[in-house]
Amino acid sequence: MSDIKRVVLAYSGGLDTSVIAKWLETERGYEVVTFTADLGQGEEIEPARIKARAMGIPDKHIYIEDVREEFVRDFVFPMMRANARYEGDYLLGTSIARPLISKRLVEIAHETGADAIAHGATGKGNDQVRFELSAYALDPDIKVIAPWREWELTSRTALIAWAEAHQISVPKDKRGESPFSTDANLLHTSSEGKVLEDPWQETPDYVYSRTVNPEDAPDQPEYIEIGFEKGDGVSLNGEAMSPATLLTALNDLGRKHGIGRLDLVENRFVGMKSRGMYETPGGEIYARAHRGIEQITLDRGAAHLKDELMPRYAELIYNGFWFSPEREMLQAAIDLSQQKVEGTVRLKLYKGNAMVVGRKSPASLYSEAHVTFEDDAGAYDQKDAAGFIKLNALRLRLLGQRDRRG
Amino acid sequence: MSDIKRVVLAYSGGLDTSVIAKWLETERGYEVVTFTADLGQGEEIEPARIKARAMGIPDKHIYIEDVREEFVRDFVFPMMRANARYEGDYLLGTSIARPLISKRLVEIAHETGADAIAHGATGKGNDQVRFELSAYALDPDIKVIAPWREWELTSRTALIAWAEAHQISVPKDKRGESPFSTDANLLHTSSEGKVLEDPWQETPDYVYSRTVNPEDAPDQPEYIEIGFEKGDGVSLNGEAMSPATLLTALNDLGRKHGIGRLDLVENRFVGMKSRGMYETPGGEIYARAHRGIEQITLDRGAAHLKDELMPRYAELIYNGFWFSPEREMLQAAIDLSQQKVEGTVRLKLYKGNAMVVGRKSPASLYSEAHVTFEDDAGAYDQKDAAGFIKLNALRLRLLGQRDRRG
Amino acid sequence: MSDIKRVVLAYSGGLDTSVIAKWLETERGYEVVTFTADLGQGEEIEPARIKARAMGIPDKHIYIEDVREEFVRDFVFPMMRANARYEGDYLLGTSIARPLISKRLVEIAHETGADAIAHGATGKGNDQVRFELSAYALDPDIKVIAPWREWELTSRTALIAWAEAHQISVPKDKRGESPFSTDANLLHTSSEGKVLEDPWQETPDYVYSRTVNPEDAPDQPEYIEIGFEKGDGVSLNGEAMSPATLLTALNDLGRKHGIGRLDLVENRFVGMKSRGMYETPGGEIYARAHRGIEQITLDRGAAHLKDELMPRYAELIYNGFWFSPEREMLQAAIDLSQQKVEGTVRLKLYKGNAMVVGRKSPASLYSEAHVTFEDDAGAYDQKDAAGFIKLNALRLRLLGQRDRRG
Amino acid sequence: MSDIKRVVLAYSGGLDTSVIAKWLETERGYEVVTFTADLGQGEEIEPARIKARAMGIPDKHIYIEDVREEFVRDFVFPMMRANARYEGDYLLGTSIARPLISKRLVEIAHETGADAIAHGATGKGNDQVRFELSAYALDPDIKVIAPWREWELTSRTALIAWAEAHQISVPKDKRGESPFSTDANLLHTSSEGKVLEDPWQETPDYVYSRTVNPEDAPDQPEYIEIGFEKGDGVSLNGEAMSPATLLTALNDLGRKHGIGRLDLVENRFVGMKSRGMYETPGGEIYARAHRGIEQITLDRGAAHLKDELMPRYAELIYNGFWFSPEREMLQAAIDLSQQKVEGTVRLKLYKGNAMVVGRKSPASLYSEAHVTFEDDAGAYDQKDAAGFIKLNALRLRLLGQRDRRG
Repeated sequence: MSDIKRVVLAYSGGLDTSVIAKWLETERGYEVVTFTADLGQGEEIEPARIKARAMGIPDKHIYIEDVREEFVRDFVFPMMRANARYEGDYLLGTSIARPLISKRLVEIAHETGADAIAHGATGKGNDQVRFELSAYALDPDIKVIAPWREWELTSRTALIAWAEAHQISVPKDKRGESPFSTDANLLHTSSEGKVLEDPWQETPDYVYSRTVNPEDAPDQPEYIEIGFEKGDGVSLNGEAMSPATLLTALNDLGRKHGIGRLDLVENRFVGMKSRGMYETPGGEIYARAHRGIEQITLDRGAAHLKDELMPRYAELIYNGFWFSPEREMLQAAIDLSQQKVEGTVRLKLYKGNAMVVGRKSPASLYSEAHVTFEDDAGAYDQKDAAGFIKLNALRLRLLGQRDRRG
Repeated sequence: MSDIKRVVLAYSGGLDTSVIAKWLETERGYEVVTFTADLGQGEEIEPARIKARAMGIPDKHIYIEDVREEFVRDFVFPMMRANARYEGDYLLGTSIARPLISKRLVEIAHETGADAIAHGATGKGNDQVRFELSAYALDPDIKVIAPWREWELTSRTALIAWAEAHQISVPKDKRGESPFSTDANLLHTSSEGKVLEDPWQETPDYVYSRTVNPEDAPDQPEYIEIGFEKGDGVSLNGEAMSPATLLTALNDLGRKHGIGRLDLVENRFVGMKSRGMYETPGGEIYARAHRGIEQITLDRGAAHLKDELMPRYAELIYNGFWFSPEREMLQAAIDLSQQKVEGTVRLKLYKGNAMVVGRKSPASLYSEAHVTFEDDAGAYDQKDAAGFIKLNALRLRLLGQRDRRG
Repeated sequence: MSDIKRVVLAYSGGLDTSVIAKWLETERGYEVVTFTADLGQGEEIEPARIKARAMGIPDKHIYIEDVREEFVRDFVFPMMRANARYEGDYLLGTSIARPLISKRLVEIAHETGADAIAHGATGKGNDQVRFELSAYALDPDIKVIAPWREWELTSRTALIAWAEAHQISVPKDKRGESPFSTDANLLHTSSEGKVLEDPWQETPDYVYSRTVNPEDAPDQPEYIEIGFEKGDGVSLNGEAMSPATLLTALNDLGRKHGIGRLDLVENRFVGMKSRGMYETPGGEIYARAHRGIEQITLDRGAAHLKDELMPRYAELIYNGFWFSPEREMLQAAIDLSQQKVEGTVRLKLYKGNAMVVGRKSPASLYSEAHVTFEDDAGAYDQKDAAGFIKLNALRLRLLGQRDRRG
Repeated sequence: MSDIKRVVLAYSGGLDTSVIAKWLETERGYEVVTFTADLGQGEEIEPARIKARAMGIPDKHIYIEDVREEFVRDFVFPMMRANARYEGDYLLGTSIARPLISKRLVEIAHETGADAIAHGATGKGNDQVRFELSAYALDPDIKVIAPWREWELTSRTALIAWAEAHQISVPKDKRGESPFSTDANLLHTSSEGKVLEDPWQETPDYVYSRTVNPEDAPDQPEYIEIGFEKGDGVSLNGEAMSPATLLTALNDLGRKHGIGRLDLVENRFVGMKSRGMYETPGGEIYARAHRGIEQITLDRGAAHLKDELMPRYAELIYNGFWFSPEREMLQAAIDLSQQKVEGTVRLKLYKGNAMVVGRKSPASLYSEAHVTFEDDAGAYDQKDAAGFIKLNALRLRLLGQRDRRG
């Protein structure tokens, strides 16, 4: 790696990535380009510009971008088409943001003539894998620097001492140990570590930042309607909305009603179990609504194939293989199924619950004529069922006869 | 079928199966044996004995049995080990009861020298398939009679007229049309038809019978602890319980807190979509608890394989293939994974929510030493991650180089 | 079905479908439209025109078509992209032809204002299912007539008597019982029934019609090269060829070298096992060549996903679900993987064997630099393997520690 | 690793592992225990004892064992029950031997109080992964030494110079470069590297050592019969045989008839493609015979589930996860399916071909009564097929109606 000259850093503006920026420059002698993205994490990104400038980075090498629409349109919504949940529950809020960041890091590297990218993920987690697999897939010759796997600043104290020795301002609240670690974007906030490390202890209420406690949510339920076209949400209560606008509005609703909290012990790709606390208020509502509209518009064959493929698809995203042939193959299959996934879903939001209570569609496959308990005017001949059962049973009967012989 | 002499009927004691009993006798000339099971449906079964006697069936041909423990132990719990949910949500409450009934029908046929069994399921639903596939698998030569597919009593009026003409007492509340159809057992109550047939209309509150409306549930959350051994629940709040006792106790808790309501449009095996309303109060709590204990005791490889096999497994049960080689193969795989699924899960019940908030186990795979943000004393070498990522990326980089060439 | 006026019949020109044509007309009173396709079965199709005319069918209702190119391009090759083999071996030669025939039957019905289609498949086999599912998928209101399930002509003698009574000429060789039944098209010839019904008895040599006995094949091996683009064969020994031309040429080679014979007991969709003898000379060569070119051009992730999806894909085609959302979803995934499946495969043909002995491609993913036993000039750092193994082993080690505790 | 005192080495007696033994002792200062296994590789193992003694290893630390029966009974046969083929073709001959060797290495480490094991696999291949994952799964605290990833002897010349400097005798034929690298055991011989590195070049004939060239095989076919019980081979031509005896006899037959040669470009777990040449004479015959007996004794549901699980199962073995919960889960499912896989398969061996030509079984599920073209005496009612098709088509028709609307 001795030939690296310039490196693009995923820069939040916070203490850790500021130390990384400085370290790359002073210890490694690289020129640093910073990339700061507004993914909907709920923090201002402009302060990152000021901090970058303060470190002497020229303006042309400071990239500050609002990528919220791209994030929801090209990453979150395609994933939601698959009804993806990792290990049965996790809506992949962190996993799905990493490929987008890597994509921009690599693109900026090409624009600025940088040979490497750098990120602030540690060597124990999944994010390093997601950042790096994405980067290598998009540019097989890119170099990746992961300071947390390389430097000696392995304790908080050492990091802060190094920061102070290098004129990086350390906010007061960063001096002590944070009681847990977080990641946030428009889809979710995750928290892990420290006070959450004992999976028997309930998550303290102060860990939650994106949702009210269901006990403090309104006593009156609220009904909403989400419109879908081609498998994607397009409106809320009849008002057309862009992807990010819709998810933002659903986040507000979810926050208010205490929806989308999840306490999970999950299996990391690097091999150990970890306990995470997730808040996905709008995502949880959206995921349920998507299943609701699929219920009446998706054929059984398509629906069951999707359900069988989903765990693999979710695992690929979790493990960092967004930019892989197999994820793209699954996406092609899933997307084809969504051509007629359109219509409106009605949900009831109430103290942590987001319940589908109605769905309608111009492309509905639900046939009241067939299912009715009333006279169906010949839509369905009950006698057909006898033959259907007989032939489905044939192999089982031959088996029963054989096993009785033996 | 002209050689049938005696038939064992799945007899609830209600109007419909009473008419069937009489019809089998008078129209077909068969001797009728009745089988009435207490599956936890919440109705007395002894009245069925009186009604059967009233139809002239001899006592030795009246079978009345409490099968609740067998139901939960041998059907519900094995299914729960798989975390089975059909089409993402449905806990298969009706599906899982049918094989048990068929098993007893066939056994009683053998005991009483009957050549056939009969059931009261219609020709449009899944239950006919489940009853019959199970019966044929257990006795390939058994005959099956499904009067709803065969007789002319296709309207409610005709049925009631026939009943009255044959001295079958018709309860007053059965004279009018029921506004919906239900099935119940210890695991759930399902409702479908009539007022539920428009999937855009919210289910009226009077349809629910097993749970309070979450809005009417207590304002205070309740914490409970469920103990597991070998993947099955064995205790509640430290008190050892049999399978049916545990599920009954969880049903009471779920009822009280409004847990387990589900409004679903699902795909029937016979080909159409139908809308069902399910209440699975104890089952929903149990299912979440089971996933909770698996989170810390199940290896990732086992957990992900289970997740991938689950949709197929659930489909098999839904479609009536409980007694099939492929369900048994999947069960063997699943059961093997459950040997160390033991420990205690803590849940918070509150207004429709059943949230896992803690889990502990003597067989935990969660290693605080590995996952900690603190110094891990060498448990995990972060540098290993670099090689791990490099080799996982290798094929993607070769692909990137190839695609750049081309 | 009383409202049927005109029916399109899949007409081979042979005795059975001639009887069906007459029966539809005389017994049912329908107007008959005939459709005869050249699928490469190796028989002239023009005689069918003469026979149809002889039965009084007007020329505008006699459809005779050469569909060989469409068959190979739109059905065989897409299926081959998936490496589809049913139950490990069967190349689906009959299954893949049925959807094409049904498609044309339905299209002709629309052109001629017919309300129904008819086919000559029996009620025991898979072909009835394939014809009818395809037809219903393409036109949900089409009527289907399957005379073999409906009429009384259940013995050969009765059929011949009926033919003679209705002025249908009966060829001498059809008077006796044929010793087996066959189906043929450009992809394969299948034989089943009669002399083949005992699965312990070796298939007599006279059953084979498309290949020489390997023992009679040339003593000298022959080398060939097949060129591929986007996953489809495009040339033989450097000469560009259309799909049907290529398959025809491979059939000649396969015939000569005794390649593609298969004796199989398979599971029919309708529930019983049957024994079939298949000859797929060109298809077997092509299938091996396709795997050969994939070996160097397909990424591992794509290849393994394809392998896992293949059995399901093959089952769908075998069962008649070509025109289904789930087959189309799988096809979308498979086709995406084939974009760079291009290059040349060299095979050695010798007495029943078709062995891939070489493959090259401008889009090769094979990297001699990485795999070499020689000095690789830093392409691959063997030390990366240590971290790769360590993290893959982590969960197994945690498991081992847990199990040792317990 | 500084605390290692004693290490168990997988020792072949050849030059490379002799150098490793010496290197472990002189460069690392470890006591070396050698383990040499007869896996059926076709070389004497006693010379390894003499060489080990010559290096000064005490007799109690020299383990020489014939593990052929264990290898076939506990590893090869269970794998064959699954019909496992990696990437469609490879019978996993090398992959399946590694877990057995690791198991014995770990057991011997425990017996001798060793803290580590060592192997001679390079850092580019799959075998290092297989050895090490198995070892870590069986003893999470074992240390593993892989000299090829650690030392400086990276060229053949350096290795030989080191050997001579340390009094290790270098056979004349090892002085030059070997033209390819091999691995052998009772199941197969694999060759790779050097002359095989260009996947376009045909494998030279001198690479093959276990089979005659099909062109040189007998001109007369040979018929054999293999007997099966519970999914495992138990006899050849009516003579009962132990697992290893049977495989040895099949190897002789396969060698004679030129069966089981495979030229493959495969995807390694470590990320690159490699080209291998495999000879699996007896294994190829056995694998085909096993499928043959399954054809008549395995239910369709079981057979199709097995086919769908197989690629995953094969991948697990290839990647080194034999001792993993998920492989054991799949094995439990597979083994359950094999309870009645019994009977006799007849094969014809001829110049590279091993064709199943007959199969019979007391547990056959093949019903001539059902499948016959003749009168079936009511075994099967063809009219059942109409209802079967109608209900299978229902969803497709509803879909067609919907799509026509839209």
